[in-house]
Amino acid sequence: MSLPQKTAPRRARRTKGEQTRGAIVQAAIEQAASQGLEGLTIGSLAERTGLSKSGLFAHFGSREELQMAVLHAYEQRFLAQVLRPALEAPRGLPRLRAICRLWLRQMAAEADSGCIMVSGAAEYDDRPGPLRDELVAMVQRWQGELARAVGQAVSEKHLPQGMDIAAFVFETYGIVLAMHHEARLLRNPRALERATQAFERLLEFQLSRQAA
Amino acid sequence: MSLPQKTAPRRARRTKGEQTRGAIVQAAIEQAASQGLEGLTIGSLAERTGLSKSGLFAHFGSREELQMAVLHAYEQRFLAQVLRPALEAPRGLPRLRAICRLWLRQMAAEADSGCIMVSGAAEYDDRPGPLRDELVAMVQRWQGELARAVGQAVSEKHLPQGMDIAAFVFETYGIVLAMHHEARLLRNPRALERATQAFERLLEFQLSRQAA
Repeated sequence: MSLPQKTAPRRARRTKGEQTRGAIVQAAIEQAASQGLEGLTIGSLAERTGLSKSGLFAHFGSREELQMAVLHAYEQRFLAQVLRPALEAPRGLPRLRAICRLWLRQMAAEADSGCIMVSGAAEYDDRPGPLRDELVAMVQRWQGELARAVGQAVSEKHLPQGMDIAAFVFETYGIVLAMHHEARLLRNPRALERATQAFERLLEFQLSRQAA
Repeated sequence: MSLPQKTAPRRARRTKGEQTRGAIVQAAIEQAASQGLEGLTIGSLAERTGLSKSGLFAHFGSREELQMAVLHAYEQRFLAQVLRPALEAPRGLPRLRAICRLWLRQMAAEADSGCIMVSGAAEYDDRPGPLRDELVAMVQRWQGELARAVGQAVSEKHLPQGMDIAAFVFETYGIVLAMHHEARLLRNPRALERATQAFERLLEFQLSRQAA
């Protein structure tokens, strides 16, 4: 039969409670993006959603549980918007380029609201606890995905053998952070263009060594 | 007469009140570095310094005046530690390299406490007002100093004519932000080494175009 029928039963499996929880988490992501994860409280979220505090506590036993749910949901959405579409590009350089372009575009789109992974880094870098640990694990998982894509570009002989993959990931991260900084603090309308050029120069440097 | 006599009267001109104000601002810088400029209140500073709140209000009429004094004092200290020693290096590439190495070293030294310019960016990027305006002006002044040093390296023919100076400054900023992120959030002990290598690669790319 047709596609809609195939997806319909899957959706039906999502209970009313799960749907409500999902909607609450979406509202919480938006709030955390603009006010920080530490600015996210059950009380402020109740105001935003129009739900009662006791109703919210029924879904999230504590503020930390809510913050953790926001981190996990943000990561899932990020992977769905950045990594998943890029996996359709062929392994190697095309996929690496697709990941980085989608990442930059995603960060530029979030420039008005703020990216939870970047702003969370400033919030939690000296605040030990489970949220910091989870944020560190998320960033490391993402750096792992980037490293895997770079490694595949090396295996496919698109990038030079023996190149320093961790250094490349570090430099790519720097470009993304600089774009976030230029767009959010300095309101530079050319931030995305600058960042895209910088990433292409990073690749060009490696490709010139490949050719040499 | 000899130098000490020349400097002694200058120091004497600093009144007791100015000395106290200076000591308070230093304590406030340390507090702002770890807890953010927004975490800095007259009350919390009174606790830290052992001075009374009314005593602090005699020096700073408001919390915002205190925060502004911290920003200005931080900038002065930063320039004294990073820019001034680098000005002793010859104009052009040696001076540009000295600026960036001192900057990276300074940021690495501040990794435990946090850099007010970087953490302030996350605090104020969506918080309009005089503090945000001052922080933006500070970052732009610093980017202007970097651009001037790169421009001199071009004039001295150490870097290629017609290179995109703003792009180079953007990429250098990215390396510094990546180092801050790796050192503060991920506690990567190799952050300074990675950042230094990344900056040298940035230069190498330009020098290879110069040679071509």
